[in-house]
Amino acid sequence: MKILAFGEVMMRLNPANFKKITQTDQLDMSFTGTGLNILAGLAVNGYQTSLLTALPANNLGRAASASVRKLGVNDQPLVFSGQHLGVYLLEMGYGGRPSEVTYLDRSQSAFNQVVLTDDVINQALVGIEMVHICGIALSTSIISRQNALRVARLAAAKKIPLCFDFNFRASLNTETDRESLRACYHEILSSASIVFGSLRDLTELLLISGEDDQAIVQKFMNDFDIKYFGGTIRHKTVEKSELQGYLYSGGNEVVVSDKVSYQTYDRIGTGDAYVSGILTGLIEQWTLQDTVNFATYNAALAHTTYGDSPVLSKEFVLNYIKNKIDVIR
Amino acid sequence: MKILAFGEVMMRLNPANFKKITQTDQLDMSFTGTGLNILAGLAVNGYQTSLLTALPANNLGRAASASVRKLGVNDQPLVFSGQHLGVYLLEMGYGGRPSEVTYLDRSQSAFNQVVLTDDVINQALVGIEMVHICGIALSTSIISRQNALRVARLAAAKKIPLCFDFNFRASLNTETDRESLRACYHEILSSASIVFGSLRDLTELLLISGEDDQAIVQKFMNDFDIKYFGGTIRHKTVEKSELQGYLYSGGNEVVVSDKVSYQTYDRIGTGDAYVSGILTGLIEQWTLQDTVNFATYNAALAHTTYGDSPVLSKEFVLNYIKNKIDVIR
Amino acid sequence: MKILAFGEVMMRLNPANFKKITQTDQLDMSFTGTGLNILAGLAVNGYQTSLLTALPANNLGRAASASVRKLGVNDQPLVFSGQHLGVYLLEMGYGGRPSEVTYLDRSQSAFNQVVLTDDVINQALVGIEMVHICGIALSTSIISRQNALRVARLAAAKKIPLCFDFNFRASLNTETDRESLRACYHEILSSASIVFGSLRDLTELLLISGEDDQAIVQKFMNDFDIKYFGGTIRHKTVEKSELQGYLYSGGNEVVVSDKVSYQTYDRIGTGDAYVSGILTGLIEQWTLQDTVNFATYNAALAHTTYGDSPVLSKEFVLNYIKNKIDVIR
Amino acid sequence: MKILAFGEVMMRLNPANFKKITQTDQLDMSFTGTGLNILAGLAVNGYQTSLLTALPANNLGRAASASVRKLGVNDQPLVFSGQHLGVYLLEMGYGGRPSEVTYLDRSQSAFNQVVLTDDVINQALVGIEMVHICGIALSTSIISRQNALRVARLAAAKKIPLCFDFNFRASLNTETDRESLRACYHEILSSASIVFGSLRDLTELLLISGEDDQAIVQKFMNDFDIKYFGGTIRHKTVEKSELQGYLYSGGNEVVVSDKVSYQTYDRIGTGDAYVSGILTGLIEQWTLQDTVNFATYNAALAHTTYGDSPVLSKEFVLNYIKNKIDVIR
Amino acid sequence: MKILAFGEVMMRLNPANFKKITQTDQLDMSFTGTGLNILAGLAVNGYQTSLLTALPANNLGRAASASVRKLGVNDQPLVFSGQHLGVYLLEMGYGGRPSEVTYLDRSQSAFNQVVLTDDVINQALVGIEMVHICGIALSTSIISRQNALRVARLAAAKKIPLCFDFNFRASLNTETDRESLRACYHEILSSASIVFGSLRDLTELLLISGEDDQAIVQKFMNDFDIKYFGGTIRHKTVEKSELQGYLYSGGNEVVVSDKVSYQTYDRIGTGDAYVSGILTGLIEQWTLQDTVNFATYNAALAHTTYGDSPVLSKEFVLNYIKNKIDVIR
Amino acid sequence: MKILAFGEVMMRLNPANFKKITQTDQLDMSFTGTGLNILAGLAVNGYQTSLLTALPANNLGRAASASVRKLGVNDQPLVFSGQHLGVYLLEMGYGGRPSEVTYLDRSQSAFNQVVLTDDVINQALVGIEMVHICGIALSTSIISRQNALRVARLAAAKKIPLCFDFNFRASLNTETDRESLRACYHEILSSASIVFGSLRDLTELLLISGEDDQAIVQKFMNDFDIKYFGGTIRHKTVEKSELQGYLYSGGNEVVVSDKVSYQTYDRIGTGDAYVSGILTGLIEQWTLQDTVNFATYNAALAHTTYGDSPVLSKEFVLNYIKNKIDVIR
Repeated sequence: MKILAFGEVMMRLNPANFKKITQTDQLDMSFTGTGLNILAGLAVNGYQTSLLTALPANNLGRAASASVRKLGVNDQPLVFSGQHLGVYLLEMGYGGRPSEVTYLDRSQSAFNQVVLTDDVINQALVGIEMVHICGIALSTSIISRQNALRVARLAAAKKIPLCFDFNFRASLNTETDRESLRACYHEILSSASIVFGSLRDLTELLLISGEDDQAIVQKFMNDFDIKYFGGTIRHKTVEKSELQGYLYSGGNEVVVSDKVSYQTYDRIGTGDAYVSGILTGLIEQWTLQDTVNFATYNAALAHTTYGDSPVLSKEFVLNYIKNKIDVIR
Repeated sequence: MKILAFGEVMMRLNPANFKKITQTDQLDMSFTGTGLNILAGLAVNGYQTSLLTALPANNLGRAASASVRKLGVNDQPLVFSGQHLGVYLLEMGYGGRPSEVTYLDRSQSAFNQVVLTDDVINQALVGIEMVHICGIALSTSIISRQNALRVARLAAAKKIPLCFDFNFRASLNTETDRESLRACYHEILSSASIVFGSLRDLTELLLISGEDDQAIVQKFMNDFDIKYFGGTIRHKTVEKSELQGYLYSGGNEVVVSDKVSYQTYDRIGTGDAYVSGILTGLIEQWTLQDTVNFATYNAALAHTTYGDSPVLSKEFVLNYIKNKIDVIR
Repeated sequence: MKILAFGEVMMRLNPANFKKITQTDQLDMSFTGTGLNILAGLAVNGYQTSLLTALPANNLGRAASASVRKLGVNDQPLVFSGQHLGVYLLEMGYGGRPSEVTYLDRSQSAFNQVVLTDDVINQALVGIEMVHICGIALSTSIISRQNALRVARLAAAKKIPLCFDFNFRASLNTETDRESLRACYHEILSSASIVFGSLRDLTELLLISGEDDQAIVQKFMNDFDIKYFGGTIRHKTVEKSELQGYLYSGGNEVVVSDKVSYQTYDRIGTGDAYVSGILTGLIEQWTLQDTVNFATYNAALAHTTYGDSPVLSKEFVLNYIKNKIDVIR
Repeated sequence: MKILAFGEVMMRLNPANFKKITQTDQLDMSFTGTGLNILAGLAVNGYQTSLLTALPANNLGRAASASVRKLGVNDQPLVFSGQHLGVYLLEMGYGGRPSEVTYLDRSQSAFNQVVLTDDVINQALVGIEMVHICGIALSTSIISRQNALRVARLAAAKKIPLCFDFNFRASLNTETDRESLRACYHEILSSASIVFGSLRDLTELLLISGEDDQAIVQKFMNDFDIKYFGGTIRHKTVEKSELQGYLYSGGNEVVVSDKVSYQTYDRIGTGDAYVSGILTGLIEQWTLQDTVNFATYNAALAHTTYGDSPVLSKEFVLNYIKNKIDVIR
Repeated sequence: MKILAFGEVMMRLNPANFKKITQTDQLDMSFTGTGLNILAGLAVNGYQTSLLTALPANNLGRAASASVRKLGVNDQPLVFSGQHLGVYLLEMGYGGRPSEVTYLDRSQSAFNQVVLTDDVINQALVGIEMVHICGIALSTSIISRQNALRVARLAAAKKIPLCFDFNFRASLNTETDRESLRACYHEILSSASIVFGSLRDLTELLLISGEDDQAIVQKFMNDFDIKYFGGTIRHKTVEKSELQGYLYSGGNEVVVSDKVSYQTYDRIGTGDAYVSGILTGLIEQWTLQDTVNFATYNAALAHTTYGDSPVLSKEFVLNYIKNKIDVIR
Repeated sequence: MKILAFGEVMMRLNPANFKKITQTDQLDMSFTGTGLNILAGLAVNGYQTSLLTALPANNLGRAASASVRKLGVNDQPLVFSGQHLGVYLLEMGYGGRPSEVTYLDRSQSAFNQVVLTDDVINQALVGIEMVHICGIALSTSIISRQNALRVARLAAAKKIPLCFDFNFRASLNTETDRESLRACYHEILSSASIVFGSLRDLTELLLISGEDDQAIVQKFMNDFDIKYFGGTIRHKTVEKSELQGYLYSGGNEVVVSDKVSYQTYDRIGTGDAYVSGILTGLIEQWTLQDTVNFATYNAALAHTTYGDSPVLSKEFVLNYIKNKIDVIR
């Protein structure tokens, strides 16, 4: 199975040891992004993955591409151009203390400034069996939006199944451009077959209404001819944190996972682990119930590993589901 | 609001990663002390703070003063003299394992050896609206005791409200000098309006008795004309740790916070976070209930942050009280 | 009390901060092994300990011996020879995520390749009052097996009490050599007076059967004239992890500890902390109940400390049992 | 002496141990900029310094301002606004291998996007006896250019002496805007009394010509009524690196320093050390020869210290000039 | 240009900061080997490279392959098998103090234990335009020797040019097996066209004699029909270290580089940088003089970079040859 | 050969990477002292060494004793008492920049506060063949002075040869107590047979005069019946640093080493390496010329290693003298 993702790569900087940035002069560095994270989670399971993105044509861009390769993701499709890369600071929480994310400007990043030509995209699509697009590209710049739409169109032209992740953040968009954004989502959704998101994405962005959640999702899936729609719900009390995954499939079916309790070491990227878990189940043709359970455990365990990208193989996760031992020798 | 604190600054050394000192050859360094911690907790909330202390006239003393400034505290009032600085080692606990604190000698530190003249103190008090004195200075040396009393007298002369922290440790005093120590506490308390301590401080050091806790505190506050008396109680079971703050105010009122459960990353300095929380509430003129709740959450969250000095702003803490999310973007 | 242990020393490498090895380019290094761990746990309690092992005659071997000394264990008896040392990678778990141990080849290590002569062993036994042998040496090479048997015989000849740890791992042995391995265990057990292991060791390796657990252990202790037989049981639920120790003594007695709940920072070596705890109780001539309680708490706390070797003194543990404070000043 | 500088603060990230960025996942972080560096070099000599700049209104901006304070520079004048801060990567060279600097986009930084009002600037100038402006602000954005000119005008209006640093980089400007840039330099130079730069700045940017270097400088200083013009020349052979400073003063005088040989640990910011050295000599009213010698040694030693900001006090440097010992106790 | 190398990958561990291993508990980790280093040096110049090797089928093997990819080298051809990987410790020297290398056993490594089938090798050779074999594989085990010979034969069968590196270490072979080793060298050399080595390799291993160096090399090149034979000579005095490269080409020509002086940060792998430099020149069809100069500078600069694998691009090195600046912006 | 040293152990803290203390929040920690350093230098050569000192009875004291053992020095003789340990900060220089040492108070350290009884000393002297006393103990406190004299007397009583190191620092003594200090030196010197110091020690402290250096030394050695008197001279120019050792022996002989050029990574403790080098030569009964050459190279190489204590074996140094290779495999 060969999967291509289109998405931005950012540099993540975080103090170690749960420190605030003012408490250290050393930062851990990694490179991350929704598309990259999902591919990394698939690569660790043995699938062939490649990333279509743009990175600056300088030492930082080359370092980012080296990290992409280290994660097992083919960096051939990516384009080097410009001088900027998005950067974000993560100050990791501890216990009840929430993590804090601080973004530096990403509007000038190679990803948000470089036009990907049809040639570049078509070249990237050669041999690809599934494409993933992260919806945030529709909001980060006009150029990234056009690039995302172009990838979707060219993939559709080649009849490559499209997996799409809403990743809609109200804060990134003013109300006035909500309308044009919605049109873009509509266009992409119309060629997508697998979609990840939340009910709020359907109601607030797409303005779909219905008598209950199931009806809303049903309408959404019918309208856009979506085959699978998945996501997670968090159940948090003072005593414990639990994650629960769901996956709607065509017709009228919804499967829901166990509530999986988790402890958090590194919160970021856990949603991407859910996505790569679902895709793994679909690739492996597991039952939907096994798929959603696997994805939920995959996401729960992703809270316990460093970094945004999933690093645990499906063998590890399946073993964990069956067998909650505390040391593997 | 401009607050000055008088107190010792020590160098804290701790192994990272919960190691014992024999398990590493690298130590994390910070500079700390009750007065400094409280000021840092106020500075992060935007108040103007300055520290009156003495540091050695060498590279370590200058490094300490640089750290004071980094915490947002004005270091102008401090005096450089001598060659010594107190040092303590912190071996951080994990889970149930308690943290261990090992003090090196502080009797020869600049703070405990330098006489602060009236001129130096009066200069430091210019424009100051509140003074904080940490009671431990009454025990660490004869010179620091005299300095503390002089600060209290000169502040009183200028009618600057005095905030006083008992910080009485029985182990630092032999029984024979308990009497003279008590006299010093009496003197300082007579000019204090806000006091932090525990019931044990009242009964064991001041020898106040009464039919119940409330009566003892009432008697104490009446005797010394104290406006506010605050502190915390820890509720620990095997299953969870909870913190509860209280604040007595003149007349007969006592407000008590929620029991706030917490997880511990770095235990030291959490009491100072309570004090800076109470002072923040008083400065902001919140209700006493809001004040004590805020201070208790401030202290509870201080268990989750590295270092002795509070680093979370009131906006962060208030947001946390309302909204227990796990990541802030 | 002078105790000698015979056992392999390996180099442990682990990424800090709960990272997987692909997420870092820095590893923490320590030197470890069952015998060394048990001795370290006894040395921290003030007993004189020394280690009989073989290390490579190069900079790594000398570094290992320096670490042995740092742990308070006499390295005089050890032999330098060859060029290899066993190495293992530990990727520490977090929350529910299990730790992962990856061994590199140890068959070529000095320990597994060097024949210890009677002279070397007899020299090591001078003045020794107790000998500990780790049963894994019976499986790691033919040479280490013969060395272990020779140590047991020479200790028996000098009537030095022998403490033996099963440490049987089915995975290290094919079924065909199970027979000869069993014979070796029989031989060593016949001169042992204190034995640590699990019921599975008795039933699967020794093929002892009986109507219930107690009967099996009784038969085992009678057959081999064992004075004490100890071990632990883990009780894990989603909500908490608890450890419970047991100690059978001659006649028919068994004492069982409290269920002690624990949190895990570093899982490896906690069984060795149990053994050193039991030996401490026996050396101190505490009651068996006090001994097994102490050992269980010692093991539970060992989950919270870095490294395989116990580092907490008996004073620390006893204080913890009585008094669950969160900071020791 | 109270000095204010106006200039951009950037985050510097560098791998330790002379590594390339692809060889590590940890970066050292500091905050730096020409104005900040010069102020830090003056603060370490005991002068009162403050920085007028703009930093993002987020955790990174606050961390930057904490670092400013730690360097002994007053951060009161600075403005928090926006979300971006310039970032650069330094890969430090070793031996003959040059260091490499990679800039991320700074066009969107708070410094380059925020208009500083007359009020803000006038407030910053209260009590100031010298102002320093770094010429790069004329090139980094239209807004920063206008801000720089405004600072110069308001300082001139208050008759505060202006120190100006060319910091012209041809690569930052296209030929077409060279003309308007030259006009800005003309305007600022007309109110400057102390200027730092190179002969190339005079000939290539200002288009001044003359029969020899001295004549060119003389013409420049006459045209703009400059009191002091200083800079350095590097003499590099395979065998050694030497630095030589010069300082032209009104009339016709030029003083030149010894050739000072140096070894390089951290190359960046050494020119700023020269500037702070010259300003120190002028403030102290040393002879021009002593001043230029001091500044050259200050710059030479700055090659041996970590970070862009000078950290060695004038006592240290003067002692070094006299007395080349290898350890100070 | 597509180059495949066959060679062992080892884990390198080194203390940072020029420490001896007893002075730290932290080690820097990287993965290295002659073939990998040469490929990395080619990949950084933009050529397509892939590595044929064997790595253990465990977390360490996977980490090694991730590092291979990070270096820009395709890891598709490599085989996962067994549990062992060679490990070596590097204690880096400083000034005159030599570096120390300590090897752990590599005889049990996957590389030295796994038979590579013709299928695996032929698959790896698809599309390859040059093959590199490191001669040390002829000495490390019988299996690695057979694998190396098989790779050479299959490459020859496909008429892919073979580049061979003597890498003969007398210490790895007893005199008695010198004869059979010589036969293996003979066999491989007979299909090689580019060879790297020293005069000693020709005289001591191959037993070639002649009246002077040139005659010996000439005889060697004629006997085995070698097109290029290259290597370096070090000139060390107390005052400086210089490197000089040579390259013999068919007919009677020898070109010799400048003596390039260098300073050493990390000594290991610098010979591999020479090889990748020569191959780069040949690929680029530079003159032999330019080629040997480039390779010598490439090797000289490799002394100043961390790690065994070359990390500087040809643009960087060519710029350095022309232009010895101290910072690149 | 069994050597005992009497001397203070301090905690050394230094920033890594040549940083000033204000530029980091992490410090490298080690434990050091003249006596300990000399013993470490002897232990690495295989001699049996033990240390008589006093360390605080707390976690820091125990960590110090663990480090003593790690260095190969027996810690049995040392006494645990009190709570303080001397601490010093080392800020390492680079290139021409001198290192800076900042001492915290050591007057209250266990070493300077604990009276060593005759019993403790006599116990420590059992089996000892040489005793080393560091002269600084005569200045650090009255108690340490009395302890040093007592050790010298009891060693003399047992006819154990005494090695004495002047280590006189004028700055530690006022002129008025110079007289009593001189008397102490006289007393100790009268029982010493091997002495290390400089000409200045003889003229300024002992007030010996003579017509030339040789005459002064001769008089000193005659007066006190000294068998060997050794030391070093540094020759520093801008271009290079050289070290030259000398050793006077009874009668009239003086041997002088080569001038050995060196580069400095860590300057502290290099004099102690000279002492351990001389003692090694005397123990090995090398010629005096070989001895002084070895010691000088030992000291020169000690500039290139981290830490105050010598870590290079005599095999390493002898190999280096003969054979200046750049990597040892």
